[in-house]
Amino acid sequence: MHAIVVRRGETEPELIETPRPEPADGEALVRILRVGIDGTDHEVIEHGPEVFPPGDEHMILGHEAVGVVEDTNGTDYQIGDIVVPTVRRRPDDEPNEYFDRDEPDMAPTGYHVECGISGAHGFMAEYITAPEDRLVEIPRRLAELGCFVEPISISEKAIEHAYASRSAFDWSPEQALVLGNGSLGLVTLAMLRQEFEEIYCLGRRDRPDPTIDVVEELGGTYVDSRETPVDEIPDVHGGMDFIYEATGYAKHPIQSVHGLAPNGVAALVGISGPWEFEIDGGSLHTELVVHNKALVGTVNSNERHFKRAIRTLRALPEWLFEELITTVVTPENVAPAFVDDDEQIKAVVEFDRL
Amino acid sequence: MHAIVVRRGETEPELIETPRPEPADGEALVRILRVGIDGTDHEVIEHGPEVFPPGDEHMILGHEAVGVVEDTNGTDYQIGDIVVPTVRRRPDDEPNEYFDRDEPDMAPTGYHVECGISGAHGFMAEYITAPEDRLVEIPRRLAELGCFVEPISISEKAIEHAYASRSAFDWSPEQALVLGNGSLGLVTLAMLRQEFEEIYCLGRRDRPDPTIDVVEELGGTYVDSRETPVDEIPDVHGGMDFIYEATGYAKHPIQSVHGLAPNGVAALVGISGPWEFEIDGGSLHTELVVHNKALVGTVNSNERHFKRAIRTLRALPEWLFEELITTVVTPENVAPAFVDDDEQIKAVVEFDRL
Repeated sequence: MHAIVVRRGETEPELIETPRPEPADGEALVRILRVGIDGTDHEVIEHGPEVFPPGDEHMILGHEAVGVVEDTNGTDYQIGDIVVPTVRRRPDDEPNEYFDRDEPDMAPTGYHVECGISGAHGFMAEYITAPEDRLVEIPRRLAELGCFVEPISISEKAIEHAYASRSAFDWSPEQALVLGNGSLGLVTLAMLRQEFEEIYCLGRRDRPDPTIDVVEELGGTYVDSRETPVDEIPDVHGGMDFIYEATGYAKHPIQSVHGLAPNGVAALVGISGPWEFEIDGGSLHTELVVHNKALVGTVNSNERHFKRAIRTLRALPEWLFEELITTVVTPENVAPAFVDDDEQIKAVVEFDRL
Repeated sequence: MHAIVVRRGETEPELIETPRPEPADGEALVRILRVGIDGTDHEVIEHGPEVFPPGDEHMILGHEAVGVVEDTNGTDYQIGDIVVPTVRRRPDDEPNEYFDRDEPDMAPTGYHVECGISGAHGFMAEYITAPEDRLVEIPRRLAELGCFVEPISISEKAIEHAYASRSAFDWSPEQALVLGNGSLGLVTLAMLRQEFEEIYCLGRRDRPDPTIDVVEELGGTYVDSRETPVDEIPDVHGGMDFIYEATGYAKHPIQSVHGLAPNGVAALVGISGPWEFEIDGGSLHTELVVHNKALVGTVNSNERHFKRAIRTLRALPEWLFEELITTVVTPENVAPAFVDDDEQIKAVVEFDRL
């Protein structure tokens, strides 16, 4: 079958021919329809995965996928079911409380591998196999957009944890700010617009820009970080009750504390490399305490978040995804999907259609 | 009546003679028994309150008090009831949603004053008046220790908010670390020992030291920050599921993120002045995200936390408070209570006994 991989030492995706996987006991065989590409994929291609799949010098890319059950192999699925695979897998046969209780997203390093990210092959191939409980069924009519379930689930978890941190008091958030105008930022902005009176999205682009258009079509206000850094936003727009950080810019967590309104929370999902810089740690400390603020980091997502993401996907307007999907390629010609410029919002590799 | 005040421009507490307050409608008159002294009082004396009570060039100190209802003045209390006043008051007659819903602790700047801290007189006097709903009744036999209800309530709130931030998943914390071996740190360590398998308390004292003795009598492990800074604790003792920061040392929030185990949370209650220093902000960011960590700041506490603090106070061993209370003075001779050295753990001003 065809698969898109990154090889050890290489920094470009490559189409290879590789044997179709055989489902083990308890696994279904899934024919892949579409796979989305995100910032993590670009990172993996540039720096290689932390760990290649055991025994291989390459890793199949991709962790945002949707497919069709092709061989049920004794699982409870039916042939033709549309499914989305979750990303984390057990790393070994050892007891694993996190997977046992359906919270692989809370498994620390050593207790999981991540398909297409580290330690396990991803989904950018004609076929994958997955344990029954690592697949989530989605309605057939959402099949084309199914590759958005995984990224939306990331935000579902981040929002869930952030809201949990505010559950000990009567919190009535009104203003939300998304840091980052990539696909994930824009989808999250759309998710927040029901809940919040005012939504803002921060980027560093000049107009005209397609992502700024989406921000404004969603009813949001675009904030240019070159003019208004996150910690100065309260002076211009008032404090933010909720900030969602999706850029991986290392100054954002610190700046967010100052960008928050009293009793606010910032949810972090982006990650950074080591970077030393100076902060006013005393004011940061005091601001967190005196105004009851919180910083909550989250990674990955579990089945509960995938299921919630499916409901969210159903509720979001179709035009949003039409604007977000800027590139659809075949596996034979993937290069345009890995271009990461200001014209690109979301690229998708299409292996098959229903 | 006698009252201990700080005058504008002065940096020493002073005994003054001032008129006994008259309870307004809806207020009770309370005869004060004991008032505890904490780090905030030392700050207030050294730097003055941010705002003096309107019309006055002095502020009565003290916010950790217990007293007896002397004049019910039409409230639902009875003469002789033992009560603890909460600290925040409405700043004016404007509508105030935070007080209306019994969450003055979540009121931002401008929506509250704090008795004995900023904008309102404190409790270090023979008599105080307080609105009925700003008093919490405690059992008579706890009267002597009633001045611990307020500090314990601070930890009740911090622990409540920290736990709330972990409520979106199945959290089974085992190791807790308290930063700070002052009275609040030691009481909090005692509160945590039921819940956690291992408890640690960080200080920077040489043995023999009375606070280290308390840590060990509580079954805790003393960690000397000069040998093991917070961010190196996982190498020595393993990661901490919960960290409680009570020192106000501005590097602690940052270091705590690295001191936490995966999925852990640090609760912050201390505050710092401005202090610029360098951090590895990229690694901080990544550590928060990749290991699902949270930083939660909290300030003050509300009636719910006071009520929980009363239950906690009842459950804590008496020997603890015997060891914590190092100084009891009369209002006429308060100087020894404001000495802040390594021999002092908790000082109390005693205005009256039952």
